[in-house]
Amino acid sequence: MGLTKELNIDTGKLKHGNLNLISDVEGIKVGHCTLASGDIQTGVTAIIPREENIFKKKLLAATHVINGFGKSIGLMQINELGTLETPIILTNTLSVGTAASALVEYMLEQNPSIGETTGTVNPLVCECNDMKLNNIRSLSIKNSDVFEAIKDSKKVFEEGSVGAGRGMRCHGLKGGIGSSSRIFEIDENEYTLGTLVLTNHGRYEDLIINGQNLSEKYMVQSINEPDKGSVIVIIATDVPLNERQLLRISKRAIVGLCKTGSFVSNGSGELVISFSTANTILHETKEIIDIKRISDDLIDIVFQAVSESVYESVLSSLFNSETVTGRNGYTCYAIEDILSKIF
Amino acid sequence: MGLTKELNIDTGKLKHGNLNLISDVEGIKVGHCTLASGDIQTGVTAIIPREENIFKKKLLAATHVINGFGKSIGLMQINELGTLETPIILTNTLSVGTAASALVEYMLEQNPSIGETTGTVNPLVCECNDMKLNNIRSLSIKNSDVFEAIKDSKKVFEEGSVGAGRGMRCHGLKGGIGSSSRIFEIDENEYTLGTLVLTNHGRYEDLIINGQNLSEKYMVQSINEPDKGSVIVIIATDVPLNERQLLRISKRAIVGLCKTGSFVSNGSGELVISFSTANTILHETKEIIDIKRISDDLIDIVFQAVSESVYESVLSSLFNSETVTGRNGYTCYAIEDILSKIF
Amino acid sequence: MGLTKELNIDTGKLKHGNLNLISDVEGIKVGHCTLASGDIQTGVTAIIPREENIFKKKLLAATHVINGFGKSIGLMQINELGTLETPIILTNTLSVGTAASALVEYMLEQNPSIGETTGTVNPLVCECNDMKLNNIRSLSIKNSDVFEAIKDSKKVFEEGSVGAGRGMRCHGLKGGIGSSSRIFEIDENEYTLGTLVLTNHGRYEDLIINGQNLSEKYMVQSINEPDKGSVIVIIATDVPLNERQLLRISKRAIVGLCKTGSFVSNGSGELVISFSTANTILHETKEIIDIKRISDDLIDIVFQAVSESVYESVLSSLFNSETVTGRNGYTCYAIEDILSKIF
Amino acid sequence: MGLTKELNIDTGKLKHGNLNLISDVEGIKVGHCTLASGDIQTGVTAIIPREENIFKKKLLAATHVINGFGKSIGLMQINELGTLETPIILTNTLSVGTAASALVEYMLEQNPSIGETTGTVNPLVCECNDMKLNNIRSLSIKNSDVFEAIKDSKKVFEEGSVGAGRGMRCHGLKGGIGSSSRIFEIDENEYTLGTLVLTNHGRYEDLIINGQNLSEKYMVQSINEPDKGSVIVIIATDVPLNERQLLRISKRAIVGLCKTGSFVSNGSGELVISFSTANTILHETKEIIDIKRISDDLIDIVFQAVSESVYESVLSSLFNSETVTGRNGYTCYAIEDILSKIF
Repeated sequence: MGLTKELNIDTGKLKHGNLNLISDVEGIKVGHCTLASGDIQTGVTAIIPREENIFKKKLLAATHVINGFGKSIGLMQINELGTLETPIILTNTLSVGTAASALVEYMLEQNPSIGETTGTVNPLVCECNDMKLNNIRSLSIKNSDVFEAIKDSKKVFEEGSVGAGRGMRCHGLKGGIGSSSRIFEIDENEYTLGTLVLTNHGRYEDLIINGQNLSEKYMVQSINEPDKGSVIVIIATDVPLNERQLLRISKRAIVGLCKTGSFVSNGSGELVISFSTANTILHETKEIIDIKRISDDLIDIVFQAVSESVYESVLSSLFNSETVTGRNGYTCYAIEDILSKIF
Repeated sequence: MGLTKELNIDTGKLKHGNLNLISDVEGIKVGHCTLASGDIQTGVTAIIPREENIFKKKLLAATHVINGFGKSIGLMQINELGTLETPIILTNTLSVGTAASALVEYMLEQNPSIGETTGTVNPLVCECNDMKLNNIRSLSIKNSDVFEAIKDSKKVFEEGSVGAGRGMRCHGLKGGIGSSSRIFEIDENEYTLGTLVLTNHGRYEDLIINGQNLSEKYMVQSINEPDKGSVIVIIATDVPLNERQLLRISKRAIVGLCKTGSFVSNGSGELVISFSTANTILHETKEIIDIKRISDDLIDIVFQAVSESVYESVLSSLFNSETVTGRNGYTCYAIEDILSKIF
Repeated sequence: MGLTKELNIDTGKLKHGNLNLISDVEGIKVGHCTLASGDIQTGVTAIIPREENIFKKKLLAATHVINGFGKSIGLMQINELGTLETPIILTNTLSVGTAASALVEYMLEQNPSIGETTGTVNPLVCECNDMKLNNIRSLSIKNSDVFEAIKDSKKVFEEGSVGAGRGMRCHGLKGGIGSSSRIFEIDENEYTLGTLVLTNHGRYEDLIINGQNLSEKYMVQSINEPDKGSVIVIIATDVPLNERQLLRISKRAIVGLCKTGSFVSNGSGELVISFSTANTILHETKEIIDIKRISDDLIDIVFQAVSESVYESVLSSLFNSETVTGRNGYTCYAIEDILSKIF
Repeated sequence: MGLTKELNIDTGKLKHGNLNLISDVEGIKVGHCTLASGDIQTGVTAIIPREENIFKKKLLAATHVINGFGKSIGLMQINELGTLETPIILTNTLSVGTAASALVEYMLEQNPSIGETTGTVNPLVCECNDMKLNNIRSLSIKNSDVFEAIKDSKKVFEEGSVGAGRGMRCHGLKGGIGSSSRIFEIDENEYTLGTLVLTNHGRYEDLIINGQNLSEKYMVQSINEPDKGSVIVIIATDVPLNERQLLRISKRAIVGLCKTGSFVSNGSGELVISFSTANTILHETKEIIDIKRISDDLIDIVFQAVSESVYESVLSSLFNSETVTGRNGYTCYAIEDILSKIF
């Protein structure tokens, strides 16, 4: 994110990882499938949580609903059992069913035992509504798009108007996929925490960068509209946290979101998914399990990392996006195209 | 449910409605689409909550998770906004994505404004795992099956091994769709409450009927297996209840479930959806709304109605089911075929 | 509980511990302070969760609210941090403040560091309303009564109309303190689970014993009144469960409660506290902690133990109570005094 | 809050009420009892929610736990029934029991029917830990202090180091009681929303005022300590909101808290109580109730009011506080005494 460096935006006190992406956490990969043609401006983003088979080797996880005006699937079982057992798929609101169906198909193919000798699988799909730029009624996402996003997954991935982020708007500007990471020490060991956001929330008039309200500097009447969006936050870390602690860190994502001026409006479905790669829960193990976790007295630095990384992820989604013209000829401008006129 | 009358099973003190079905609540209809052929023993059940367009004229609703080991979609937004805005679809676990996708398609067709001039829609789909009788890996449910179930909806509907209930097992016996209703007075007005269950839970060894453990009378070794099932409970009523009160009555469903000996096992996804037809919330209304609700001091009779009706619904799912042979030639016996030998 | 043996009541399939009390779980002791004089029929019961200083060596814990029409204190922090750090005090509704205050005083005395070099302490006090038998307006409980209950704690303790149970009614009969335990194997190791209940819930007309409704056999007009009570359930175990799993077992307490015919009425504050003695969380430790817990695939036997033990605890509270005459000369009859006339 | 005007701090876009206090909402009064002598720096603050008897004429209410590392009492019943039935008392952590006991005594005196012909009462007491300035182990708060705070209640009340705020610290500076209000239109009617905070949270190094980090301008080594505090937020409004909507606005308090740089640390118990004066729920009414509430599509302006008013309340707690010297001679400086050196 060259521009934030250039603009000297203060994104916090902790140092970031090598890539400053969620994939700085060992084993995590991200892939996109982008549909960008006329009225169809949408896509799929897949977050692969570990190298090995996630169904057989589950990870501890938690979910937190900031504002439940949304249509995601898969949260209930994570809350009950504390484990993540599939990749995480992001897409547009009306395509959640298709994405869930495709993810089930993918999991069945990877795991011949599902529905045969073992139980079923819990697909996790989150969404934002991209109907301003995308003809969401066309239900353009197909199963193959989900497979492609999974297949595309890699450590160094694109941000901005790609994958599920293609049609998203953030603070009236072009938003989408953003990511960041932080590195810090706990009890003399170094840990990494990374975040990925799908930004589709906020009003232009509330946007704050470097502590300053952007709209006061540069008024753009056309982009002052009610907030009808939402934001998905994915947090990954190698800090040994259990499911309760992952819920606690999930609750701090909003601190980072607030820094750009969001006030979590009515229409905004805001959701956080967190997982830790430090413990593995074997599928259908039938014995006593040893879990490592930090003392809660050590957790403040993780809260701080969440806050900083989420904040920078939102900025990153803005600064990596390009101007997109979509449904009914509507154009959503990239912040760069606006900032270049002010700064 | 002739047999329960014949067996003189005590199903409570309140009188039941005319049909003794959830459709005794004015405006509610239920439809099925059943797939029953060899290894494919599954289906779809649709509950239509009102005659008029439910998206435009929403109903107050609540959801309660007894055990979250399940994969349903649509609960989060109901919890946030307190409204139901689609029919409720029941199907098998791995077909939730498809059913959600089909329900979205149906809603788009009914409401040209969705995704055009207004926002999106929150499809509600619940599931149980029918893999013992059904080849769930085949993903046999198609969009057309969902449309057919909706189209099939009527006031007088079948119970037992039909629709989503086709492949379900309850207490080791053939379960599926069951329904019942209760009529009672509050403050001198008569109200109706109806329930519909999709039963797929419980162990044979725990099954209690008329206060007696069935397995002690009639031991069937082959059906003593761990409980891997789940149960979905739908509660509808014309009692004026708000979303908080609907949550309170949802929490009493378990009282009815316990009466047949369930202990809500680990693998059992148990879920309750409640709605009231007494108030209508117009889509996108922008004013002060008047809501009628009872005082909580009057709610005990509703709790009792839930307990009795859910209990009788479970029994009804058992007594209306027929013996089904499905995947790998496995046969799940109807309780009638077993009871005829004992009583 | 000789009478249940005599009556041949089926209390489940698992064997009970040596004492058939919550104190069969190693380290747990229970004490009472009973006030029984004229209009004052109330008291305090203390559950000591471990031999060692519970503030310095906390235990994993969870709380579950079945019906929140109650006034307990201390749940919020247990939910957040997953730990129990004080004895558990039970008393009447209007004395929660006094009991919390006394418990704080006790903890300060035991731990000179609290409020000095370390933070504060989270007192846990639960209650039921004994106003039918007790002049609850007199606020008779004093700090010294709490200290006395704690001092009285022992492995072999009394049940029935003692301590906090002095003025409680259950299903229109004399209720109060009841306790039971279960022993079972998981992965070839033997574990113990014990429960203690403070029963003040239910209507006489709903009471079921041995699968039969008692009121149908023996109608007592005077005790048919609306349910205005509540019930507190304490679950202790040496099974290694984490806080999420303790919540899951807490949710199964209702299964045991339902067996006597409760339907969790409006006015009934119903609450469950669970803790495991298998892991110790040191106060203010600042490092990585190792936690042992079972796989969720093994948890069904624990659910069953909860259900059976809670059920037997409720019966035990009934069968160990004596007839009590209290406020305004009201007499609440022990079940023995009624049963002796029927059976 | 003259200074913020002088400093030209931007506290939002909505206009504030006449007093810029929570008491701009009709009927609300606030009173303090302050103990300030040597090592004893603590107190009690009472919020009176309406002129009339709140037990007989309850108000709709909701609670939201941001971080549950706290010891408040009374939340559970509000969550279950959605009503507030006592004044709200704020005090120090270890005095919650005493305050609850005193509040019960006060309610009994006001309502001779409690515990006699009607049920019990649910006292609501919230707390922060003032042990840095106050000898919290001394348990200095007495019942009479609570009565005095209630008696002291008035429309125009003091902010800063008074009442429960006497010993509190905020961002390493002297915090305590702060209040603010906003006025806005919904559907052409004017409404008021007011907030009151008890601030005891945050680190100096994170404090942001006017978008600028204060510690970067003025480094004060001695006040850089880990955050061990907490914050209580009370929101009152005459907007017709039901209990679900009150929960939704409660969740937006954190947006205001974040604006001064809080990141909701581990040790920080953060809690929000909201109530609306627009509907009255009569105690033990037994009929159908009419409730007025706004459409959720109108709620964004209320969210914004919460965010702005909470933010200004925190600032107000800082700018109205005076430097206090307390336990062990520790001095906590007022922001004015520090700002006067920088600005």
